[in-house]
Amino acid sequence: MRLAHLGPAGTFTEEAALLYAPNAELVPYPTISGGARSVLTGECDEAVTPIENSLQGSVTETLDLLIHEGGFAIKKEIHLTIVHHLMAQPGVALADIRKVYSHPQALGQCKGWLAEHLPNVEVAAALSTAGSVKQAANDALPAAAIAPFRAAALYGADILARGVQDDDSNVTRFIVLAKKDAPPSGDDKTSICFSFDDDKPGLLYEAMGLFSGAGINLAKVESRPTRLGLGRYYFLIDLEGHRSAEAVAVVLSALRARASELKIFGSYPRFVD
Amino acid sequence: MRLAHLGPAGTFTEEAALLYAPNAELVPYPTISGGARSVLTGECDEAVTPIENSLQGSVTETLDLLIHEGGFAIKKEIHLTIVHHLMAQPGVALADIRKVYSHPQALGQCKGWLAEHLPNVEVAAALSTAGSVKQAANDALPAAAIAPFRAAALYGADILARGVQDDDSNVTRFIVLAKKDAPPSGDDKTSICFSFDDDKPGLLYEAMGLFSGAGINLAKVESRPTRLGLGRYYFLIDLEGHRSAEAVAVVLSALRARASELKIFGSYPRFVD
Repeated sequence: MRLAHLGPAGTFTEEAALLYAPNAELVPYPTISGGARSVLTGECDEAVTPIENSLQGSVTETLDLLIHEGGFAIKKEIHLTIVHHLMAQPGVALADIRKVYSHPQALGQCKGWLAEHLPNVEVAAALSTAGSVKQAANDALPAAAIAPFRAAALYGADILARGVQDDDSNVTRFIVLAKKDAPPSGDDKTSICFSFDDDKPGLLYEAMGLFSGAGINLAKVESRPTRLGLGRYYFLIDLEGHRSAEAVAVVLSALRARASELKIFGSYPRFVD
Repeated sequence: MRLAHLGPAGTFTEEAALLYAPNAELVPYPTISGGARSVLTGECDEAVTPIENSLQGSVTETLDLLIHEGGFAIKKEIHLTIVHHLMAQPGVALADIRKVYSHPQALGQCKGWLAEHLPNVEVAAALSTAGSVKQAANDALPAAAIAPFRAAALYGADILARGVQDDDSNVTRFIVLAKKDAPPSGDDKTSICFSFDDDKPGLLYEAMGLFSGAGINLAKVESRPTRLGLGRYYFLIDLEGHRSAEAVAVVLSALRARASELKIFGSYPRFVD
């Protein structure tokens, strides 16, 4: 299987891809949408993409891709605990470091650690955590990078400090996109989105009432702009149950009758640690 | 009045600030949170900050600031239609341009125009639309910037093409933060957030039922992570009515009894064009 992921090699998305399919042929893409579209063109069979982080919230690029571009389905979810490491080329010691590179999100997640351990060091942005290891290696000053564990081995760096993130409840949820979603497993979730011609979120309350009335639990409720003007939203819901289960199917068809648009992104097994 | 805004001079946030208070002393800050905190320290009296865009959705930095840092209230909302212009230093013609700078969001909003009119031109990221005018001026290659109208005059650039955005329904909603919110105007909105000890969005449905039962319309429903782990959310609601109106006050106190946390960000006049 050819498995697309946000590259370069050594990113957390690659780590999630390896966790999901250790024997797949991994194909890195520079953007989330590039990886997802490779499933539509047949270049790849499936794509792994981040959708939500416990500290930063939704990855809106992924949500908007699901909403505005059709053709792929969610077949799996994966939770990955995010652990950052400080690394540098061999020979650079912690006391030598004059500059630290990483993706701005990772720098933000390690702000406290940096302030305590490297208070006078310049901080510089990189396009990805994995790429920051190369940037640090090429800097004229003695520089380090904040990156995932695997990036050290891939880019020949030594780990100077492990687990430098400020908050240990940092978990990213990834999804696997394919042409078809998953068959029922007995413990499933279904992701959908819908909108209404009218712009009243009161209709969201009615829609949620359909699920509540059928005893279907909701795991997530979120809104994204329809791009038709301020105050017009798509509502995204993750519900418990497979779309082929009778109770779920009945509610989805009632919702389809009321909504101006309903998209079912797919049903997939609920992630269990 | 000293009015903080996201700087430098020439950004859309400055444009919104001028629309709100043409005679205020404008004080630019490099970050959204820097501007907001200036209200708490007394450096500024009020701060203008973007909260939502009709194409890109919520400005999560502003939402998280309201949720996680207390002390300020929303006293006003402002809607501003976003119009982008292509500009360059005098002497640079459209046909000369080899590079276009702007904030990545603005570049994304003008992607179609650029592909049609400047297909082989390199695109480069800047930290702000206004700052991109300076970066273009300093580039060794003939370069242009995509920025707001006012930035041309401020940074000595000529406008080469007007209204280069792909979508004309691009509207940003700004809020004014102060120490106190606004008195009732007769046509008001109130912004709140709440969370529950339990992690079931079913409780959101119950909360929405309180508003629905009291005939209170909701203008917006949104979720943000509590930072306590995946699946734990703050719900943000904009409702129609002032917090001092009896029906609103009754529902808010019923909600306070059920929620583990309820924050009222403020009541303010609904924006009317």
